[in-house]
Amino acid sequence: MKVSGKHYRSIWQDEDGIVRIIDQTLLPHRFEIIELATLEGAAVAIETMQVRGAPCIGATAAYGMALAMKADSSNAGVDAAVARLGQTRPTAVNLRWALREMEATLCDLAPEHRATRAFTRAAEICDEDVETCHSIGVYGLGLIQGIAATKPGKVVNILTHCNAGWIATVDWGTALAPIYMAHDKGLKIHVWVDETRPRNQGAALTAWELGAHGVPHTIIVDNAGGHLMQRGEVDMCIVGTDRTTRSGDVANKIGTYLKALAAFDNSIPFYVALPHTTIDWHISDGTIIPIEEREPEEVTHLSGLHADGSVERVQISAPGSGAANPAFDVTPRRLISGLITERGVAAASEAGLLMLYPEHAHD
Amino acid sequence: MKVSGKHYRSIWQDEDGIVRIIDQTLLPHRFEIIELATLEGAAVAIETMQVRGAPCIGATAAYGMALAMKADSSNAGVDAAVARLGQTRPTAVNLRWALREMEATLCDLAPEHRATRAFTRAAEICDEDVETCHSIGVYGLGLIQGIAATKPGKVVNILTHCNAGWIATVDWGTALAPIYMAHDKGLKIHVWVDETRPRNQGAALTAWELGAHGVPHTIIVDNAGGHLMQRGEVDMCIVGTDRTTRSGDVANKIGTYLKALAAFDNSIPFYVALPHTTIDWHISDGTIIPIEEREPEEVTHLSGLHADGSVERVQISAPGSGAANPAFDVTPRRLISGLITERGVAAASEAGLLMLYPEHAHD
Repeated sequence: MKVSGKHYRSIWQDEDGIVRIIDQTLLPHRFEIIELATLEGAAVAIETMQVRGAPCIGATAAYGMALAMKADSSNAGVDAAVARLGQTRPTAVNLRWALREMEATLCDLAPEHRATRAFTRAAEICDEDVETCHSIGVYGLGLIQGIAATKPGKVVNILTHCNAGWIATVDWGTALAPIYMAHDKGLKIHVWVDETRPRNQGAALTAWELGAHGVPHTIIVDNAGGHLMQRGEVDMCIVGTDRTTRSGDVANKIGTYLKALAAFDNSIPFYVALPHTTIDWHISDGTIIPIEEREPEEVTHLSGLHADGSVERVQISAPGSGAANPAFDVTPRRLISGLITERGVAAASEAGLLMLYPEHAHD
Repeated sequence: MKVSGKHYRSIWQDEDGIVRIIDQTLLPHRFEIIELATLEGAAVAIETMQVRGAPCIGATAAYGMALAMKADSSNAGVDAAVARLGQTRPTAVNLRWALREMEATLCDLAPEHRATRAFTRAAEICDEDVETCHSIGVYGLGLIQGIAATKPGKVVNILTHCNAGWIATVDWGTALAPIYMAHDKGLKIHVWVDETRPRNQGAALTAWELGAHGVPHTIIVDNAGGHLMQRGEVDMCIVGTDRTTRSGDVANKIGTYLKALAAFDNSIPFYVALPHTTIDWHISDGTIIPIEEREPEEVTHLSGLHADGSVERVQISAPGSGAANPAFDVTPRRLISGLITERGVAAASEAGLLMLYPEHAHD
């Protein structure tokens, strides 16, 4: 999407052949583009979260393989690159998928053809991701248009949680794809952006994305969404997901469940946007999904921009008090109005998902 | 309650005659006691939130009147003190009640007797508040004991939101009174402390209070409570309230409604602790309570302790993005298991409240 009027992807190969990314660790305070020149550069970019978001990580790993082939396209070079990139983020599903895909593409080729083919395949992986997110956007747009039709001339207010935007993918995003598409089509929309403690991906990344593209939005603390729903100031919710079960239960950033409860209590549609790669066909019951427990310092300390221009870290809690930091929660399917996929909008149920993905009936 | 083993109130007159308070603006990073020597000192303490919480503000205003009488006990002196203190916090109900009470006490006395009587009445107001909170504690303790009986030998996990503790009152607090009492009686309890964005009264004040008194507790982001309830890690919730309608709807710090929804969804008892002074007998429907909209900077900026020991303010949101900041929300009575008052535990309904407060039947 756009930054100050110019279109960007989160990762791309320029005409000069150089692979570039946006350094997401500097957002929202600085917008800086950096080069990925080597395998190691790509690996470090993933490790240090200069790129984050499963699809964006997968695309970066694919380009990491291509960069590795430029330096050493031997079988040993392929193996070493897969090993190095594979250890950057232990739980990322898309990362592993992208590495398997690149390995399969390269292993049958003679070493001298591998680098060229690797860059082509990495570009294809990026394009495929953009197409997937674009389709999610089209189907989600229909839902927004449906609500807009019920309040002609008025603004459609959409609440989102965390960051499921274009910088977490290659372009468009998942939850934000329908929002960008609605805005670009001239629909009057406004986005309530949950700040999404503890890491504040909403206030930092989603707000930055929407602001850079020109989408009207307002940041709120995670506590405020229920009140806004009670007072009629939210027309729909759209969030992303880290893992969705075959029955339609949705694991997503901590706090999603609370917003789904409030939406349900106020008869506000609550949608989850996802590519099919996020569906775990091997689990039905969301309550058994293991939830990552992260560092307490993410709760007790916070970084931000000081008035003097430096980024400083401060402790915001009582000294000596411990903190717990579960990173995700599971929203049961009964609270979800629909799953927006690249094949259409499914009911949040096994039957709903299998209608769009019949090939997984016997998984 | 205790700080490092020594018992404190939030405001008191020492044997040397000096009125002292804890400077709450320095918490949780520094515990400092300051003197209130004059009317102006008391007024500034309220204005700058060195004291906060309705009962604590009321008590400070009462001592402010007494300090004023030491300097000028004429009728003009009474009027001037009421006027000065009355303008410190425009919406505080207890503040106005305390000023009316002090004025009524003093106006019939000869000026030379006013100072002595004012100090006595201020002390009585403090003692009455302590007694009220103590009674809330006793009734709430019964509820905790009831839950403890269902899981012998195990820890009772209690979730609270914002700060309704002893430093917001004169002692004990409202929501925290039952918790202190349970802990002091040797019950195994553990408190989940919602950090309570945007002002973080949970992570800063509630965690500080509990830590200083020695009550086991863990800070969580406001997003996490629902997940903990789903996973069986919360046995009950107790929160305070800023205003409760005669029908039992509860206005409290923003985010309370979301926790009540999650408690209801997981069949976890959700209690609200309040002195009767918080009940608004003139409103039945909580949805019409006007909600204060506060400064967006409370959402976009945050202060905390820097590693170098200074308290610094940083911006945590995308530059240029606006924020909305509703300060309270309303939890409908259908989600509330009971109202813990100084007269007992009432059902959250008009009938329930009138059973304890029959004198308000015709208000």
